[in-house]
Amino acid sequence: MAIGGGIIGGGGHHSAVAARVAAAAHVLFLTTAVLMLVWLLHFRGGINIQSDDPEQIFNVHPFVMCWGFILLIGEAILAYTTIPMDHRTQKMVHMLVHLVALILAIFGVYAAFKFHDAAVAPDLVSLHSWLGILAVALFGLQWLFGFFAFWLPGTHERTRAAAAPAHVAAGLAIFMLAVCAAETGLVQKSAAAASAGEAKLINVTGIFILLYAVAVAVAVALRKAFFY
Amino acid sequence: MAIGGGIIGGGGHHSAVAARVAAAAHVLFLTTAVLMLVWLLHFRGGINIQSDDPEQIFNVHPFVMCWGFILLIGEAILAYTTIPMDHRTQKMVHMLVHLVALILAIFGVYAAFKFHDAAVAPDLVSLHSWLGILAVALFGLQWLFGFFAFWLPGTHERTRAAAAPAHVAAGLAIFMLAVCAAETGLVQKSAAAASAGEAKLINVTGIFILLYAVAVAVAVALRKAFFY
Repeated sequence: MAIGGGIIGGGGHHSAVAARVAAAAHVLFLTTAVLMLVWLLHFRGGINIQSDDPEQIFNVHPFVMCWGFILLIGEAILAYTTIPMDHRTQKMVHMLVHLVALILAIFGVYAAFKFHDAAVAPDLVSLHSWLGILAVALFGLQWLFGFFAFWLPGTHERTRAAAAPAHVAAGLAIFMLAVCAAETGLVQKSAAAASAGEAKLINVTGIFILLYAVAVAVAVALRKAFFY
Repeated sequence: MAIGGGIIGGGGHHSAVAARVAAAAHVLFLTTAVLMLVWLLHFRGGINIQSDDPEQIFNVHPFVMCWGFILLIGEAILAYTTIPMDHRTQKMVHMLVHLVALILAIFGVYAAFKFHDAAVAPDLVSLHSWLGILAVALFGLQWLFGFFAFWLPGTHERTRAAAAPAHVAAGLAIFMLAVCAAETGLVQKSAAAASAGEAKLINVTGIFILLYAVAVAVAVALRKAFFY
């Protein structure tokens, strides 16, 4: 049951390039993840949701948002076409990794609220928080929509084929919104960094997140999910 | 000479919805532009590139970036399919409005550097500046590529048809990068706002910029520039 088989084309030159771009995305994934860890462990004193230090509670937020909400979503997007298994398994990995990302995103929002509690700061004041909440909410809706339309049996094949392009477009748009929210968060921390070195590290992390997002989007585009 | 005629489809239900989404984008354009003016004139004391007050020099930057680099680019994207004229005119407006946007973007970068000069602040320190410079540079390349491939005569029709999807995808990606850069800039100013009212106004402006970008992207997607 290859859903949207007419949309997600395979084979040919584009597909080979797409595989190489996806491989580059994995490298960018690892680089970003390591940069984020160096920042939080070396410059910001560690990650602990149950700490008495509000800053350590806060550090949970960028950690799970970067790993969960940005990197896992990208990998879930790539998994749909790149895992060398049958299409049913690809779909399951796509769905499950997105679910883990959603749970981590909700945990990341919780960490931000808990930090505000501990630091006696108001919630949902910054543009970062508005964009982030919007991204998590839309992502949750998108996951639910996808689960009912594409995973559970009972939806007509023709309905699925018609809904697939909207699913791909909305998914990429929400991914870009999440990246946008991440960049606004990093900018806040970069401006408040304790040293020029820390600020540079944060900026470089932001650039790598962007490159990762572009690599994922290009891999999807080359898979002809978009064009034909 | 309808370039990419097989890609940019017309007519039908999707096209009517696309026209309505494009109309909504124009309303979002006006709202965003007015919010930006209220912010700069009412809260930040006016816009003047030749002022002795560094803040008034700075205000030129968000003004031309919002109007030029975000709003005009969106309108240029929409113009390609929505202006009720022959396709050659649509293309010319698309090309010329993008050129004005590019010139304004370069002027906006100049304003930021001039502000740093006047305020004795270092250049290109923030993640916002890195993302913004990247967006302007890529936009300039994209414009040059489009000018030679699609505007000047001499390129084979088949080459143009093959390059059109990449032009659309790269254009939307650069537009999203520009929006991302704008949001990071607004976040910096929101965090440093003089009052809670000003911060809220900046945040709302950021949300409207995002909604505008989404409306433009959806209008393009519905025009079938993407899917078929």
